[in-house]
Amino acid sequence: MSVVLTEIITIGDELLIGQVIDTNSAWIGQKLNDIGIKVHQITSVSDNEQHILSALKEAKQRAEIILITGGLGPTKDDITKFALCKFFKSNLRFDEDVFMQVEKLFKARGREVTEVNRKQAEVPEKCEVIPNSQGTAPGMWFDDHGKIFISMPGVPYEMKSMMEASILPKLKNLFSGGAIVHKTIWFQGIGESFLSDMIEKWELALPSNIKLAYLPSAGILRLRLTATGTDENELHDQIKQEVKKLYGLADDFIFGEDDDSLEKVTAKLLTEKNLTISTAESCTGGYIAHRITTVPGSSAYYMGSVVAYDNSIKENFLDIDYSLIGLYGAVSEEVVIGMANSVKNKFRTDFAIACSGIAGPSGGTETKPVGTVFLAIAHPNGLFTRKLQLGSERERIIRETALHALNNLRKILIGKLK
Amino acid sequence: MSVVLTEIITIGDELLIGQVIDTNSAWIGQKLNDIGIKVHQITSVSDNEQHILSALKEAKQRAEIILITGGLGPTKDDITKFALCKFFKSNLRFDEDVFMQVEKLFKARGREVTEVNRKQAEVPEKCEVIPNSQGTAPGMWFDDHGKIFISMPGVPYEMKSMMEASILPKLKNLFSGGAIVHKTIWFQGIGESFLSDMIEKWELALPSNIKLAYLPSAGILRLRLTATGTDENELHDQIKQEVKKLYGLADDFIFGEDDDSLEKVTAKLLTEKNLTISTAESCTGGYIAHRITTVPGSSAYYMGSVVAYDNSIKENFLDIDYSLIGLYGAVSEEVVIGMANSVKNKFRTDFAIACSGIAGPSGGTETKPVGTVFLAIAHPNGLFTRKLQLGSERERIIRETALHALNNLRKILIGKLK
Repeated sequence: MSVVLTEIITIGDELLIGQVIDTNSAWIGQKLNDIGIKVHQITSVSDNEQHILSALKEAKQRAEIILITGGLGPTKDDITKFALCKFFKSNLRFDEDVFMQVEKLFKARGREVTEVNRKQAEVPEKCEVIPNSQGTAPGMWFDDHGKIFISMPGVPYEMKSMMEASILPKLKNLFSGGAIVHKTIWFQGIGESFLSDMIEKWELALPSNIKLAYLPSAGILRLRLTATGTDENELHDQIKQEVKKLYGLADDFIFGEDDDSLEKVTAKLLTEKNLTISTAESCTGGYIAHRITTVPGSSAYYMGSVVAYDNSIKENFLDIDYSLIGLYGAVSEEVVIGMANSVKNKFRTDFAIACSGIAGPSGGTETKPVGTVFLAIAHPNGLFTRKLQLGSERERIIRETALHALNNLRKILIGKLK
Repeated sequence: MSVVLTEIITIGDELLIGQVIDTNSAWIGQKLNDIGIKVHQITSVSDNEQHILSALKEAKQRAEIILITGGLGPTKDDITKFALCKFFKSNLRFDEDVFMQVEKLFKARGREVTEVNRKQAEVPEKCEVIPNSQGTAPGMWFDDHGKIFISMPGVPYEMKSMMEASILPKLKNLFSGGAIVHKTIWFQGIGESFLSDMIEKWELALPSNIKLAYLPSAGILRLRLTATGTDENELHDQIKQEVKKLYGLADDFIFGEDDDSLEKVTAKLLTEKNLTISTAESCTGGYIAHRITTVPGSSAYYMGSVVAYDNSIKENFLDIDYSLIGLYGAVSEEVVIGMANSVKNKFRTDFAIACSGIAGPSGGTETKPVGTVFLAIAHPNGLFTRKLQLGSERERIIRETALHALNNLRKILIGKLK
């Protein structure tokens, strides 16, 4: 792990009055950590020149790398660039490459560049420009006698693409000492404390140069193994061995590694096997279809969905018998089986996912409280169904239903479920 | 607005490596803001004694109120209390009241107080104890010649209950001067720089006690006005006047205020007018349906969607003539008009949204590059269509299509579009 002292300065009144939660710093902290650079301090300051200047001065005394986000927009409240000019005693120059990028972005939206956006191409003479493929504000890299100051936009996707494309590789080259290897394992269908109990012995027996982190989020859990040492190949071997043991202990809940997602993993399986899929959604209201279609190329295997939010749509377009809904309720195994079979036949696909549930906050009953969801997957060899109980929070119920659906689809595709 | 300089120090390695996002600071910032105290700076440091001491020292030079969270747990990695003892040159004393609270918490779980938790009742002699009704770590209030240091646990619900019950009332008594009023205005369909040009004169003429901030995110823009002064009613009036002028300048792009969202605003309009809606989605793959159904109670006005990702679904379930697709392409005004009319009739709704576009990364042509999207909204009095050009990034194209669809629906509902 490198000992180079690194700080983050985030600029923006919205952070101080709590209108925006600073998620950028955590993301940057993680990414730097991945290349062996540990963030030492995070400072958030207001859009005020004196305040920015004093934050820069203080950070310079403490740190060797200073990453700055925010305050680079084209409007009057954005003053970071001018504060940096003052701090480094630098004038502005007009950068043709940046201007071409600004022009390109405007062209893609069928618009002419305005005067205020032309100014986005003005950069401090003393900085090296970092291209911004997602927006008009370029990043700026200052080398002040070996101390590195990097200024980036505060808009998360602009900052992230800039970090991934330019800044992280450059910092890794300059500062990364020793070898570090990360491996992330993705779990679905198990909570943090249950997994922790399940793998306790393995965790306690991990070599001392491998650190383990639990990274939970709604319905999904990641374990990150970080191995540090001198020889990268050795670390890869070490990680491989430990991950193999982990699969042996918790295989049922693991769906992928590193950059995987459930939609990417299922996309790969469907594409490889040349299979197609459709969906019939009630409580998830199109969210499963949305998750599936975030994957580029999904049109090759995904045909479409009937979002049957109202019961009349279930009846008229998925041929669910009115009496079936009367007898068992729209939230029932019987109805989701009908929905899955119907959309599979109508859309002529190999697989079909259907769900119906009570996402709340109202609509729950004693026998079917909010969070009750029925899931069905019709597949070439039969039908899989499951009843889920997913807590009481609407957005989580929708999200977790989709995760369960995709993970069970995955298990059927690899022959682990029938 | 009080001019008392206030800072937050958050302590914990997990914040610096990005394992935990600091949501406490935003919450504290908001709550202090509500009582007229503006946070000037937020600093996050590691669980390291030297680092905590230097952060305290620096904050003392800059601020008059310093709120500290984190590092008060019973385990070895929590060292904030000991760092505070060192900083204030104070010894620890055993506090009977705190111990009774610890005992009570353990009793409620049927457990005996362990030795390590008994130590939670040891507090610095120089502090005033702030009770923690939710956990074992007491809060600590230090008055250092008029400079206030307040240490709280990092566990959000413990910190929040302590703030609400004791700290906010006490700070309000001591420091609150003046009044502060915020107003947020939401825009869709206009970029930051275009809006800035459009409202430049208004912005320059704003009274000096009103500050303006541009808060952009993908496809959406917020403007925040912050008025400070002595009389709250006066500030509300002042803001009201300025907001009225803003509507006069940019009404076409404003869709809401404060906690609004496009799905909430359209939900309210549809419910009030007792109208129903359905969707027929191609490139958005169910995302419009998902946005609509995130609103609790959406089943009252939302019937469902046909996600016609494959052309065969457009033909067989939305009755789009094969020759129409052959002639104009699936991404065309003709096809989205057919989709909107078809789903409106079939699902028997008052409104229907349809879209078809090229979300990329592949599929673009010279005349219809990636980002080309056709949108149609069938309504009781006719049909609205629009061609959009939405850049080149898949997820943004999907997201922005949904935003355009919902905002145009809103405009039709209020009679601003036909």
